[in-house]
Amino acid sequence: MDKINHTMAGIAPLNEKAMAEAEMRQDNLTKPQGSLGQLESLSIQLAGIKENPRPRIIHKAIFTLAGDHGVIQEGVSAYPSEVTSQMVSNFLRGGAGINILARHVGARVVVADMGVASVFEPHPHLKNKKVAMGTHNMMKKPAMSREEAIRSIEAGIDLVEEELPKGIDILGTGDMGIGNTTTSSAITAVFTGAEVSTVTGFGTGLDDEGWKRKVEVIQKTLETNRPDPKNPIDVLSKVGGLEIGGIAGVILAGARYRIPVVIDGFISGAAALIATSLSPYVKPYLIASHQSAEIGHKLLLEFLGLKPLLDLELRLGEGTGAALGIFLAEASLKILDEMTTFSEAGVSKDM
Amino acid sequence: MDKINHTMAGIAPLNEKAMAEAEMRQDNLTKPQGSLGQLESLSIQLAGIKENPRPRIIHKAIFTLAGDHGVIQEGVSAYPSEVTSQMVSNFLRGGAGINILARHVGARVVVADMGVASVFEPHPHLKNKKVAMGTHNMMKKPAMSREEAIRSIEAGIDLVEEELPKGIDILGTGDMGIGNTTTSSAITAVFTGAEVSTVTGFGTGLDDEGWKRKVEVIQKTLETNRPDPKNPIDVLSKVGGLEIGGIAGVILAGARYRIPVVIDGFISGAAALIATSLSPYVKPYLIASHQSAEIGHKLLLEFLGLKPLLDLELRLGEGTGAALGIFLAEASLKILDEMTTFSEAGVSKDM
Repeated sequence: MDKINHTMAGIAPLNEKAMAEAEMRQDNLTKPQGSLGQLESLSIQLAGIKENPRPRIIHKAIFTLAGDHGVIQEGVSAYPSEVTSQMVSNFLRGGAGINILARHVGARVVVADMGVASVFEPHPHLKNKKVAMGTHNMMKKPAMSREEAIRSIEAGIDLVEEELPKGIDILGTGDMGIGNTTTSSAITAVFTGAEVSTVTGFGTGLDDEGWKRKVEVIQKTLETNRPDPKNPIDVLSKVGGLEIGGIAGVILAGARYRIPVVIDGFISGAAALIATSLSPYVKPYLIASHQSAEIGHKLLLEFLGLKPLLDLELRLGEGTGAALGIFLAEASLKILDEMTTFSEAGVSKDM
Repeated sequence: MDKINHTMAGIAPLNEKAMAEAEMRQDNLTKPQGSLGQLESLSIQLAGIKENPRPRIIHKAIFTLAGDHGVIQEGVSAYPSEVTSQMVSNFLRGGAGINILARHVGARVVVADMGVASVFEPHPHLKNKKVAMGTHNMMKKPAMSREEAIRSIEAGIDLVEEELPKGIDILGTGDMGIGNTTTSSAITAVFTGAEVSTVTGFGTGLDDEGWKRKVEVIQKTLETNRPDPKNPIDVLSKVGGLEIGGIAGVILAGARYRIPVVIDGFISGAAALIATSLSPYVKPYLIASHQSAEIGHKLLLEFLGLKPLLDLELRLGEGTGAALGIFLAEASLKILDEMTTFSEAGVSKDM
């Protein structure tokens, strides 16, 4: 827990001076004030994060973390567990959705095995952070031990720290884990206090029957484990996932190193619930890339007080929404830095 | 009118075979079916437009058309008319919002003077398509003659045709014209039949008093001119703008040459109302980049049956939203073309 505590202790508030300067510049650029909407507020947030009124983004990294979920024994997913490891291999070959979108936005993808239920051959682009061979079936017992939960978060922090020498001006989070919408719905229900049925969706493609089973499984899971919403490590260990713990660590480290954290969809959102519950100072570092098609995500973002940039009915995960969010963050900073002011351009400001 | 009729006659339906093939490919890519939401449907639309199940985008052009509006004599804008020409100069120097975002997405900007109320020195990057020195005050008489309306649309067609040799795989539309939200609200009211007050917004920054005046001005304009909603040339000439006619021409030519047309916000939307009223075959070629903060735009897009890709509270115009839409269109095609299929990747498709 030392690494987590040390990381949390290092998270500072945003830089108000840089934000005020960025806002003043936005108001003097050759456009009606506020006419670039969320791009303007985003640029000001980024200025505050990076302590610079005109920051630039060069190095972009998307952290895509994988783990398996014992709860899929209960029939809560349309895909078998093997798909988690098959998709990790797909990431390493560069053929998955996240590879395509990361290339499109000029980001590198950092793929990590946090707890996939099979063993990979060593690969130069695969970070081996395996904490366990997947989680236990959380309907029957805690998904992992308290110790494993802590190790998963610390491994996420390590992932970011190991990438710092290559440069990270902005980071995105992503996930791969068959069964992890079940886990994320459980986490969301615990923190928000919402009814399970209102935060449980169809995942990768359940039918109505499967959805009912999934709701029941989550309800039983919560009854069995009784996670304490005031104790994020307790929640993570009882109803979480190893990739979710890892993403929570990536988020904490992002905030610690003043790196804007673009969160992907529902699973990254569940990790953000863990991270912000550990430290409320994390929140200003978060950028919600999109509103997922998963039903629980809307409530989750409202609970976090985050407004998503996109709403394209995405529900793939992997960091695909985060990649698009990184593009918009970069756009907002180019506007802030490169547009001319009214006085530079000789444009009349108003009547 | 010959050029318009000839262009309209050349607009064909989308290619169903290419769309079916693209859809089949989407369903076999390594992701749950439908999990990339609007990016999937967008890629299929683009395949149909380009008659190719795996089209690519290389050459991107944003057409930013400028014109002045006589109606601003009635005090309907927070900015003076001179800003239109000042902003055109800003576009040519590369310091405006559209320049920054176009560079960010790798698009060229084609700037055209459709009817600015001042004369520009010749400039290598300014297309001189001036039809008149701005429109008349439409509250008192028709904004332009029927002949001028036709010439503005034909000039828009010319703009696209002149750019064809450089390559246009996708195009965006954009506008600059102080007073043109007033014009666009009038056009929207005519075509949709909506109350003027429900489609009139605050433009670039009116106060409540200014908004009331703007609504009254539009109501009087419609009473004075009685534009015929069944006759788009009549609507354009009586309550339109020269840049709006030009954008309508760009849209028609886009459809004619099977170029996907990414429309920007409210003003481009008003031009799309003109273009689709001229020819219903235009509609499948349209991609709505974003939901503008201008109140009338929501109704306008619903009337056109278009779902916007973004909702970032943008209201700058110039083609800024279209630039972001072009990025998403390109993302959707890279997904379609570059992702591996389940069989290529050896990933299990389902249980």
